[in-house]
Amino acid sequence: MANFIIRRQFTIEWAHCDPAGIVFSSRFFEFFDWGTWMLFEAALGVKPPDLAAAFGIIGIPLVDAVARFIAPACFGDTVEMTSQVSEFRRSSFDVEHRLHVRGAIAVDGRETRVWAASDPADPAKIKSRPIPPEVAARFQVA
Amino acid sequence: MANFIIRRQFTIEWAHCDPAGIVFSSRFFEFFDWGTWMLFEAALGVKPPDLAAAFGIIGIPLVDAVARFIAPACFGDTVEMTSQVSEFRRSSFDVEHRLHVRGAIAVDGRETRVWAASDPADPAKIKSRPIPPEVAARFQVA
Amino acid sequence: MANFIIRRQFTIEWAHCDPAGIVFSSRFFEFFDWGTWMLFEAALGVKPPDLAAAFGIIGIPLVDAVARFIAPACFGDTVEMTSQVSEFRRSSFDVEHRLHVRGAIAVDGRETRVWAASDPADPAKIKSRPIPPEVAARFQVA
Amino acid sequence: MANFIIRRQFTIEWAHCDPAGIVFSSRFFEFFDWGTWMLFEAALGVKPPDLAAAFGIIGIPLVDAVARFIAPACFGDTVEMTSQVSEFRRSSFDVEHRLHVRGAIAVDGRETRVWAASDPADPAKIKSRPIPPEVAARFQVA
Repeated sequence: MANFIIRRQFTIEWAHCDPAGIVFSSRFFEFFDWGTWMLFEAALGVKPPDLAAAFGIIGIPLVDAVARFIAPACFGDTVEMTSQVSEFRRSSFDVEHRLHVRGAIAVDGRETRVWAASDPADPAKIKSRPIPPEVAARFQVA
Repeated sequence: MANFIIRRQFTIEWAHCDPAGIVFSSRFFEFFDWGTWMLFEAALGVKPPDLAAAFGIIGIPLVDAVARFIAPACFGDTVEMTSQVSEFRRSSFDVEHRLHVRGAIAVDGRETRVWAASDPADPAKIKSRPIPPEVAARFQVA
Repeated sequence: MANFIIRRQFTIEWAHCDPAGIVFSSRFFEFFDWGTWMLFEAALGVKPPDLAAAFGIIGIPLVDAVARFIAPACFGDTVEMTSQVSEFRRSSFDVEHRLHVRGAIAVDGRETRVWAASDPADPAKIKSRPIPPEVAARFQVA
Repeated sequence: MANFIIRRQFTIEWAHCDPAGIVFSSRFFEFFDWGTWMLFEAALGVKPPDLAAAFGIIGIPLVDAVARFIAPACFGDTVEMTSQVSEFRRSSFDVEHRLHVRGAIAVDGRETRVWAASDPADPAKIKSRPIPPEVAARFQVA
């Protein structure tokens, strides 16, 4: 068994870069978010805007994010990003994102997200919910 | 009679700037949006997140935006931005934003926005509504 | 003779959208910037980060930008953006960007940019330069 | 001895928020960056764009960033962010950023940055340099 992995290729745009001529750090967390939605669409076969309704949740909010910036990504660089769920727990899970530029790892990141629904006791609040086993199973490949 | 004008001072951050070391163009439209919310709060005495409920609208969506980039704004520069409604029409209005850097105009912009409510015939749609005269009056000073 | 046109397809990401669930206005100006670099690469056969060196300029800075927001673009929407130079003048030019969503025009924009080099009299300053005819010619198709 | 701490108050803008109506995660890393520049200016008495020249470095690039998202920050919220260097090592240091919203911690973050100069052996490369003791001393208060 292995994790289901998606790959996304994109180009570093002028607008992504800061006065040092390299991608500004916060942009990578935006790229991670892209990767997670794309991964969930590929694994579950549900379009991102339909995810919440399809599973009776309000979404998969981020509770923790980490990134290591190993090498810079520059204007015009082609990036290959891989994204995979590295661990499912009862109601939270980790998504790992790795960006390669010119054959080497540039950025290594991890998002921790929660499978979240409105709280039946107070619909204005959010409550984590158990991740359905059939959801987790879709992120594994034989 | 003159237009009610607000002034906002802020600093150009590293994250606002591009590889040329100057503010990336799209950021100015974000600054304009800041200015409009601040202007409406100052003129109407209503906090931005309460504006829609206070006036029975869904918001003041942007339909047109223009900017002239006259001089660059650089990392560390202090910007003074003025914002005012230059014209109210039946259901739309223009907000003018002007950014000064080091004593000279750096950017001159204009947003056209609509006073918009949900369409009673189809709540999924948006319909422009007449701007209440008492709203427009608050953007004038004697 | 017709303008050389490029098409770029992309998906509206969660990070592009505001609390109204639609693309926040400033993002479109970022998309326009993407389009211009892609258009110049396609027309001139020069990678964006090499453009300045290839033509002895410092870049093609934006002096004017306009957008009309005709219909919203939402999270998950597929956008097709076309970009073309609509007019070359002596040292400035207009790039037109049009975004289609679900078969209709969502946003119509225009950037005015300058062919710019450092000022020989003061290298800290920027001066517009005549656009080489062989550059302009590459943006026409027979 | 205690760490020198700066406080910055700001308002959550419409443009900071995503379709869930809360600040999009990547924005917090932009806020952290604001905090670090402001902290360095306050501690060292050097304007951000002059920092590199004042100390013979190329900058203080980010090598690691972490954030825990404890409670959401919403459109119109007033945020108080504190920033401090929690540890100086030989050539790297940690900056801690904490955002309070409505009296409670909303986000807790940490950046690891490097005191970096161009590599004398290859000016195109960056090399970490020992942090001058007189720099570190400015981040302590008696």
